[in-house]
Amino acid sequence: MPIMNVADKFEKVSEMARRRGFFWPSYEIYGGVSGFINWGPLGSIMKRKIEDKFRDIFLRRLNFYEIESPIIAPERVFKASGHVDHFKEPMVECTKCRRKFRADHLLQEIAELSSQETDRMGLSEIWEEIERHSIKCPDCGGELSEPKYFLTMFQTTIGPYSESIGYGRPEAAQGIFVEFKRLYEQVRERLPIGFAQIGHALRNEISPRQGPIRLREFTIIDLEFFFDPEKPQCPLLDEVADEKLRLVLAENRLKGDETPIELKVRDIVAKGYVMVEWHAYFMALAKRFVASLGIPDDRQRFIEKHPWERAHYSAQGFDQEVYLDRWGWVEVAGFNYRTDYDLKGHMRESGVDMRVFKPSDKETVRVEVKIKPLIQNIGRAFGERAAEVLGILQNINPQALLTAFNENGFYEVNGLKITPEHVEVTKVEVREKGKHFIPHVIEPSFGSDRLAYAALEYAYSVKEDRVVLRLPRDIAPIQLAVLPLVNRDGLPEKARAVYKLLINEGYMVEYDESGYIGRRYARFDEIGVPLCITIDYQTLKDETVTIRDRDTWRQVRTEINRLPYLLHDFFRYKINFEDLGEPVEKQ
Amino acid sequence: MPIMNVADKFEKVSEMARRRGFFWPSYEIYGGVSGFINWGPLGSIMKRKIEDKFRDIFLRRLNFYEIESPIIAPERVFKASGHVDHFKEPMVECTKCRRKFRADHLLQEIAELSSQETDRMGLSEIWEEIERHSIKCPDCGGELSEPKYFLTMFQTTIGPYSESIGYGRPEAAQGIFVEFKRLYEQVRERLPIGFAQIGHALRNEISPRQGPIRLREFTIIDLEFFFDPEKPQCPLLDEVADEKLRLVLAENRLKGDETPIELKVRDIVAKGYVMVEWHAYFMALAKRFVASLGIPDDRQRFIEKHPWERAHYSAQGFDQEVYLDRWGWVEVAGFNYRTDYDLKGHMRESGVDMRVFKPSDKETVRVEVKIKPLIQNIGRAFGERAAEVLGILQNINPQALLTAFNENGFYEVNGLKITPEHVEVTKVEVREKGKHFIPHVIEPSFGSDRLAYAALEYAYSVKEDRVVLRLPRDIAPIQLAVLPLVNRDGLPEKARAVYKLLINEGYMVEYDESGYIGRRYARFDEIGVPLCITIDYQTLKDETVTIRDRDTWRQVRTEINRLPYLLHDFFRYKINFEDLGEPVEKQ
Repeated sequence: MPIMNVADKFEKVSEMARRRGFFWPSYEIYGGVSGFINWGPLGSIMKRKIEDKFRDIFLRRLNFYEIESPIIAPERVFKASGHVDHFKEPMVECTKCRRKFRADHLLQEIAELSSQETDRMGLSEIWEEIERHSIKCPDCGGELSEPKYFLTMFQTTIGPYSESIGYGRPEAAQGIFVEFKRLYEQVRERLPIGFAQIGHALRNEISPRQGPIRLREFTIIDLEFFFDPEKPQCPLLDEVADEKLRLVLAENRLKGDETPIELKVRDIVAKGYVMVEWHAYFMALAKRFVASLGIPDDRQRFIEKHPWERAHYSAQGFDQEVYLDRWGWVEVAGFNYRTDYDLKGHMRESGVDMRVFKPSDKETVRVEVKIKPLIQNIGRAFGERAAEVLGILQNINPQALLTAFNENGFYEVNGLKITPEHVEVTKVEVREKGKHFIPHVIEPSFGSDRLAYAALEYAYSVKEDRVVLRLPRDIAPIQLAVLPLVNRDGLPEKARAVYKLLINEGYMVEYDESGYIGRRYARFDEIGVPLCITIDYQTLKDETVTIRDRDTWRQVRTEINRLPYLLHDFFRYKINFEDLGEPVEKQ
Repeated sequence: MPIMNVADKFEKVSEMARRRGFFWPSYEIYGGVSGFINWGPLGSIMKRKIEDKFRDIFLRRLNFYEIESPIIAPERVFKASGHVDHFKEPMVECTKCRRKFRADHLLQEIAELSSQETDRMGLSEIWEEIERHSIKCPDCGGELSEPKYFLTMFQTTIGPYSESIGYGRPEAAQGIFVEFKRLYEQVRERLPIGFAQIGHALRNEISPRQGPIRLREFTIIDLEFFFDPEKPQCPLLDEVADEKLRLVLAENRLKGDETPIELKVRDIVAKGYVMVEWHAYFMALAKRFVASLGIPDDRQRFIEKHPWERAHYSAQGFDQEVYLDRWGWVEVAGFNYRTDYDLKGHMRESGVDMRVFKPSDKETVRVEVKIKPLIQNIGRAFGERAAEVLGILQNINPQALLTAFNENGFYEVNGLKITPEHVEVTKVEVREKGKHFIPHVIEPSFGSDRLAYAALEYAYSVKEDRVVLRLPRDIAPIQLAVLPLVNRDGLPEKARAVYKLLINEGYMVEYDESGYIGRRYARFDEIGVPLCITIDYQTLKDETVTIRDRDTWRQVRTEINRLPYLLHDFFRYKINFEDLGEPVEKQ
């Protein structure tokens, strides 16, 4: 039965991941719902360590910030962002069995068109191709309907009013754009500045497959980097100037050539392959980030998107792809030059000025709206909640208030209805030296689930017929295992004391006294524990333990009281395994 | 205008939180949508540190695990869990202005009934009370409609089929229950065992107010602790036996007495105030956890819920409450004995056996379903995806497959339709010594947003007319500020070097050289930075810096090269501020 042997790496990794608690499909007891996965006891730790690594590289070290905003947003947010108009996919329905399919995917799978081709097609062209290739329902062979667009956002209702439509966010970015003015004030008007958000996002895919690669719910890591378009230079470029990136340029792709060219970041900038220097800077950081997850440089590439492949907000875009055994090159991150598209959209939709101010020698004049609360009217209207209303008025954006007055005749928050009679609105002419402008945005955006899966696939290896998960030591979910050599003679007690010591040092540690030591090592190799610490008879004599390396199976012996600072340095990559103690001769 | 002076602590904290980037209402530029807030640049770090503290106390140290499952779940999950039937609130509508209100809240606010009273009422009793008190629309004075139940889950559709209803999870717990069998295998059938989940949850409140206290989207921290109901003893009880808890017992509440009685955990257990020892154990851990966020013991209490106040799944419940300035006692955590309610519900709804096995001397007989893939049929039906199907069958729960066959005639996953002709199903009689049972559950469940708000409120203090945010040093978002005394003479360069050193040690550090040193100290006091490190002229001579304590404003002087290990110990509460260096005399 040769068919049993074709298991590819995805199958092997998935089988291990399900058995040992990394990830598996959700809701299996209910027959499964495709597009949803769980990260389990081990997977969730590993995934979070990857996200923390992003925080360290892209936020803490750059003095950028993170925010956490809701997943559900009112319709106007996604009208402003263009998602209500653009975030949709072509869908066909079988007229016989009523199953629904992504029309472009059918063309790719059955008519063997490339995604480059289908991405350019409108509904009528898709329909022509379906008819030309006589494509039928892949399930029952029935006739397909004409394609329609399906909005791939999850829709819901906020509160008890059916007209109050909300959507699950398809990206975390809008939570940042909507709040940009507030955030900008909070960081004391620093520019350039980056704000990130890591959280669940929702895309209501028509028929997702591909396990952890195409999900309806996933974790997105969005970094929105705001800069003055008149100052697009990146002063940090030197730090990455010699980093080499493998680029697949759009101009070459047009000629049918997908071979990457390897270029230093300084040359990418010099040759004008990016419109904004920061674009190249973030791609270089991202390459290092992904490499640190165990994905070699030559299994990464950056592919420049054609205009028709780019999202509606993007003026230039590169996808960072990694090579996966089953699917070939798969996007793990996108780098888009979003210009002022989003802030402009929210400015138009909300009526709120999203511009920032830049001092200069030229004097300009503008009209500022000021609000004065009419305290007596407020006291009369709101009674004991008057103070609350005053608090709200103190913090409100005057323009938002006016907009609400114009549209609804009132402004409502927390059940308080503020009307024009509660405030005096004045307009003041302000003369100032400087100008107002909308910042531009470069966006690095990562898929956390895909990164975590890729890290697992690259870590998965077989040594002497056993699986060894060679995860980088700083993303391994369990850092240490403490094992008494045998389950008697006081060794378990001593091992428990060492376990306790390491727990108190803050490590993720497993204690295991069951079965032969070799089987225990094998179990910990399979889940990627970098070091096993074994307590043997010699420990009782001289307070030393052996430390075993997951990847080489070599062992060293060291004193228990030296463990805390040795391990501290080891897990920060300051020392290597050999530095942990004296080599132990193989018995 | 005395009305301006009544600002309570909530208003003050909110104003600061909005200005400095802790939290604020979402979507303000669109007039706001109540029930949604953002955690900003500072708030999101603090909130995550609180969640990480939970992980440390309740998971890492107890060797329990976390998982991450989707927010969206198919309808059957919440049918099984009882939420579709029970997770609803009484609502009335104004017949004139069409506004909708929580009926029980109106009775509490206008008829001054207690929540104890309204919680017991059915729709007809609520309606009677509304009529008896002639309650009208609080907005326009119109007549109210008869109350109806409103399902407070966010509803959506999964994929393109309108019959495929999904809900946003109102608790993270179900993600654990649904996967319990798989999780139990992954931890090698350990019992007792805890699985937690920290993530966004959604409750479609009818008309939420109260800022961060009543939210439509919030972060929940659910820990589901599974144990054998025949072994309810907690072997860890000794560790907390002398911890004192302030309990408000249901029997006293019935008599109208809400005074807490202070009892040691050992006495709570001895007197039978909890049905399960673990219940008291987790409440004791929770008290310590909440105290470590800066909320004193006497501002905490545990209130036992009456049967009619408890959630539908709960056999005994305590709420952990903290005292907040505006709202009085507010729940920050719930501790419920969920028994086998949830696993039983999923067993019933899915047909999958959720029981675990316990060996014993008694022999039992049961029937086990086994599946054999029919490889030729599978090869013929699935072609190149046959291996995938075999992989699925290898991992599937046989009972789930049979259930799907019985209900739909097929089992579908990833677009693969598996039918009875692809497998041979056999039933085997298994004799074994032992018994199968459904584990019982104790659930500690925290509201992360409320904890974070409470920590802010308790940290908020005023010293010499300035705000000082006395956050515990291990949840302060920014740990260190590095400040050159003046912005010249080489001090900024030196300060930048110290900044770099501390960044490389892994700290969250701010560098600030703008303005007078006093103003900078004030700014960092207001956002709760525990230590300011100042570089002055003496630094250039002898490589020492001053360290200033946020709470006492005292200063010590120490050597730069001693900072790494001193700070390491300081932030882990191993040493105090005074141990950081030599006291500096006030100039």
